[in-house]
Amino acid sequence: MLERKIYLSNLPLDRARELFLNAALKRKMGAEELDTRLAAGRVTAEPVFASISSPHYHAAAMDGVAVKAADTFGAAPTAPRRLILKQNAFPVDTGGALPPECDAVIMIEDIIFPDRDNPEVIEIREAVAPWQHVRSIGEDVVAAEMIIPSYHLIRPFDLGALLSGGIFKLRVLKKPLISLIPTGLEIIPPGKIPEAGEIIESNTYTSAAAIENWGGEYIRQPVVRDEVDMLERAVRRAVRHSDLVLISAGSSAGRRDHTYRVLDRMGEVLVHGVAMRPGKPVVLALVDGVPVAGLPGYPVASYMVLELFIKPLLYAWQKQPLPAGEMLYASSSRRILSSLKEEEFLRLKVGKVNDKFIATPLPRGSGVSMSLVRADGLAVIPQDKEGVEAGEGLTVTLWRTRRDVENTIVCLGSHDLSLDILADHLKRGDYPYSLSSAHVGSMGGIMSLQREETHIAGLHLLDPERGDYNIPYLERYLPGKGIHLVHLARRELGLIIAPGNPRNISGIEDLTREDVLFVNRQKGAGTRVFLDYRLSKQGIGPEKIKGYSREEFNHLAVAAAVKGGSADVGLGIRAAASTLGMDFIPLAWEQYDLAIAPAFYDTLPCLALLEAISSPAFRTAVERMGGYDLKDSGKLLTM
Amino acid sequence: MLERKIYLSNLPLDRARELFLNAALKRKMGAEELDTRLAAGRVTAEPVFASISSPHYHAAAMDGVAVKAADTFGAAPTAPRRLILKQNAFPVDTGGALPPECDAVIMIEDIIFPDRDNPEVIEIREAVAPWQHVRSIGEDVVAAEMIIPSYHLIRPFDLGALLSGGIFKLRVLKKPLISLIPTGLEIIPPGKIPEAGEIIESNTYTSAAAIENWGGEYIRQPVVRDEVDMLERAVRRAVRHSDLVLISAGSSAGRRDHTYRVLDRMGEVLVHGVAMRPGKPVVLALVDGVPVAGLPGYPVASYMVLELFIKPLLYAWQKQPLPAGEMLYASSSRRILSSLKEEEFLRLKVGKVNDKFIATPLPRGSGVSMSLVRADGLAVIPQDKEGVEAGEGLTVTLWRTRRDVENTIVCLGSHDLSLDILADHLKRGDYPYSLSSAHVGSMGGIMSLQREETHIAGLHLLDPERGDYNIPYLERYLPGKGIHLVHLARRELGLIIAPGNPRNISGIEDLTREDVLFVNRQKGAGTRVFLDYRLSKQGIGPEKIKGYSREEFNHLAVAAAVKGGSADVGLGIRAAASTLGMDFIPLAWEQYDLAIAPAFYDTLPCLALLEAISSPAFRTAVERMGGYDLKDSGKLLTM
Repeated sequence: MLERKIYLSNLPLDRARELFLNAALKRKMGAEELDTRLAAGRVTAEPVFASISSPHYHAAAMDGVAVKAADTFGAAPTAPRRLILKQNAFPVDTGGALPPECDAVIMIEDIIFPDRDNPEVIEIREAVAPWQHVRSIGEDVVAAEMIIPSYHLIRPFDLGALLSGGIFKLRVLKKPLISLIPTGLEIIPPGKIPEAGEIIESNTYTSAAAIENWGGEYIRQPVVRDEVDMLERAVRRAVRHSDLVLISAGSSAGRRDHTYRVLDRMGEVLVHGVAMRPGKPVVLALVDGVPVAGLPGYPVASYMVLELFIKPLLYAWQKQPLPAGEMLYASSSRRILSSLKEEEFLRLKVGKVNDKFIATPLPRGSGVSMSLVRADGLAVIPQDKEGVEAGEGLTVTLWRTRRDVENTIVCLGSHDLSLDILADHLKRGDYPYSLSSAHVGSMGGIMSLQREETHIAGLHLLDPERGDYNIPYLERYLPGKGIHLVHLARRELGLIIAPGNPRNISGIEDLTREDVLFVNRQKGAGTRVFLDYRLSKQGIGPEKIKGYSREEFNHLAVAAAVKGGSADVGLGIRAAASTLGMDFIPLAWEQYDLAIAPAFYDTLPCLALLEAISSPAFRTAVERMGGYDLKDSGKLLTM
Repeated sequence: MLERKIYLSNLPLDRARELFLNAALKRKMGAEELDTRLAAGRVTAEPVFASISSPHYHAAAMDGVAVKAADTFGAAPTAPRRLILKQNAFPVDTGGALPPECDAVIMIEDIIFPDRDNPEVIEIREAVAPWQHVRSIGEDVVAAEMIIPSYHLIRPFDLGALLSGGIFKLRVLKKPLISLIPTGLEIIPPGKIPEAGEIIESNTYTSAAAIENWGGEYIRQPVVRDEVDMLERAVRRAVRHSDLVLISAGSSAGRRDHTYRVLDRMGEVLVHGVAMRPGKPVVLALVDGVPVAGLPGYPVASYMVLELFIKPLLYAWQKQPLPAGEMLYASSSRRILSSLKEEEFLRLKVGKVNDKFIATPLPRGSGVSMSLVRADGLAVIPQDKEGVEAGEGLTVTLWRTRRDVENTIVCLGSHDLSLDILADHLKRGDYPYSLSSAHVGSMGGIMSLQREETHIAGLHLLDPERGDYNIPYLERYLPGKGIHLVHLARRELGLIIAPGNPRNISGIEDLTREDVLFVNRQKGAGTRVFLDYRLSKQGIGPEKIKGYSREEFNHLAVAAAVKGGSADVGLGIRAAASTLGMDFIPLAWEQYDLAIAPAFYDTLPCLALLEAISSPAFRTAVERMGGYDLKDSGKLLTM
């Protein structure tokens, strides 16, 4: 019933890639003939030599008249020469053919019509040299010259030279054809809201789009249930007509993961398990000379295998250099521990704060696809390194441009839904700036300001003694730093409970009940400070609350926990409750402000942000969620 | 019959672009709903908020058994705890749903089967914390959180997060739709070899491919003859369903160019004539709120207008930043004069010689489409600058990567067809290097070596006194420089004449005949040195040769001149004659060598080049052209 893991090797990434590429590249892309007009973006399979010259006749380079240069010899201002149109001077347009015997063109500007009654007579006051204003044969393309070599990626303007050189068809490399086989009992196609245990198929759609970006074509096979014989039949069919087969999921060593077994039976497994994270449980094999990869099921792991194994293969097949991302040197905003067993690929947020690039790792789990979406770039912690210290340098390969990163406003601190909406309004505005927020809690935001690692921190910290928000904390932790505090919103805080209040909760005091399971926020979160303040005011010890130690990192995660039934109640904002259709018991209005680093305050991006905060469109959008009051938003509270 | 030019303004480029973009961007791209699976590469029209969480249930993060953590409390190596499968321990695979009541997963590696006879009994030796190895609801995506904002270019991995977040359809910006109208009496569609005066339509194919690269879609209209009413009808139809209309050619002020007149009648002409080169005669107008551009007919001019006006418009419509090319600072290899009337866009070859980037301008005519094909990048000479001096710095916007430029072997000197073939063989080989040759004649090559602006120079210079090739010139012009001379080929030189020898030419002496028109090579070309040597040996003064002063810059251009009838005879190599089907009167075998700069000689790219030169495939390919002897190719002659 329970099967043991099949042994996974732990091959270093470079070695694994070398093994795979060497084997896979024995297969070559053939060539196909294509209409030149459709050839942009394709790669030549052979050099292309012009079949005709361009121009292929002597052509006028100006509008004017074509003449025999010798007929003009001796003409001068003092000795004008008359010519007769259609006899020894022939009107020509730019690009037109010179009549036989003509070897020069006189621009229309240099022609005089001396006789009003006879428009056929023209006069010139200067002799012209042979071949003046003439594009002679082959000025652009000479017949038989090489227009473009083999393995040349055809650009739009290459079409112009090719067509002008009489090349109407040409041989290009075939595009690599990749079969995608999604596997798994639990996989359902996109389109319906899944039941528990069902997973919406997404990896093969990501793979398909990546393959197209990298110059390949794909065929998607139907989902294969985790059954050895069915998988074998699907692979057998796919290798017959594909250059590469990608089996999605089923590459780890789980109970139902048959990919390794099937590939081992059908062909030669080159690699099973690579010392990389995410992406470790990849299987790479050859079946009938066709490379087959078993991709891990987790989205980040699957994508990293595409990026590190499949992308180099597709570029090599198409004889194109692997595009190198822009690099940037950034210091890590925190200590990151990493295993000595693997090379780890960190997804990072990168921002430029005080002229220094700061990198902050995103959640490292291989199931967190949002860590790819939110990433500005990747950095590698080598296998023999235990991690990086806070402040240590990291070489980041950017996924955005350096300019985009420089135009990003970094906001670390507490999460609020209004920040998402603010980011969107900024993006829709006229400025090139974007807002990137990472959720580290209010105290985390204050610490980031202290370490000068963020432009802005989102805060909602209640001072229990003064009953005041945020300012006491700035005075305590950032005295004399000149932080500007700008009010963003007041929001309603309360208990998030299941619809209809099945546990009959009426207030904080119910959290101690034996039949009530609480879900908390992480330490340092403003919401948790508020909870602890209320608990101590009411004399309730945290140890009396079941679930006090379970921490979620934002309001929506708390509401989702209640919705999912893993908790009965949590503390959060009304908007989070109503978004997920939960009920809400209001407790207080709390104040959410943005603390802005002094060096950032007067900059253009900050002005753009403040403009967005004060815009009616932003206020309306936030207040529409319910539980928000923005009447004072944009007010400067301290400076 | 001859009409005067319509006045062209000379608006500065920045001003013209501002006028055009401000007017054109009043038109906005609408939105359309799209299946998420097809959305990669498109731009969101609004923010996308997750409709479900992912995971949307508590999911096992490991293969193993799901348990209630409380059931394991107290377990220790000294106090193992037994659990019964399917009663209080439930096998789960990674990604599977936890059964109700379970809140933790124990990895299969940590499970012991104590009883061989009863596989349902398992034993654990450690307590587990609640939520261990569980991906709780929303770990990746939390329902209602913003997955991506407005105006976000959707990448492959965004699809994963969108689908997992239950987004099966989304609203994206429509792609700008561009109508292409080719115009001109002389235009013929690609597919047949053109007659004199006919021009193969190529600009709208270049435009179409560029539009697709920049995110737009296009419709090509049939070719419109240069007739005002027809053009007006075509534009009227196009503006009804397009976001932008491009009229190809017909924008200069020639006799048959009606674009300006038609647009002036139909709408508002914003710009007619821009102070830029190439691209001056552009017309930019608005017709019924739709921007319409009349593109110049010359391919380089047309492309520059696309690049400088149309590309920014398409990116702005799609709310995407204009991609900035990589920049590089290079010194100009020569003096370049430029008009004060225009901003000039130079197409440049760039190479790295002795750790310094050297830029060499390509032919500057707006009809030379090969100058785009061959360019490594662009540089601008501002309107108020008369040009640049040799050695002066230029800021080059690269069209290739810096790495590609660094991997380019620069060869300046005499042209030979074998260099094209060598470049192709290098490209087909296993090395990342490419050979880029520009044709400046043998003496030009020697001067470039002297100025350290080239890695290699192709030479075939006969020393009339010693009867020897190349070495005497190296001794004279590059004494003690340590140049390595490598033999490439011997090639047959002779007179290129029309098929059947209609002028009855039998040798050099016939060049002085009254009825024989010669075409010469440029000063400094080895072929010209050979000619002058022969003439002086035979006591013939150059002034006796009709056409002696007409210079062409390579063998094929000479053969093309003979083929086209603008000359009766020229001096060149047999391969050029036979390629164009001309006859040939052999005169001598000359020696073509490569002179290699000493600092380049021992580098990897040079070794790769020498390997290609010595390869049998290269020799065969060159000798197949006829008139070549490569038996000694690759021999080192001096060092």
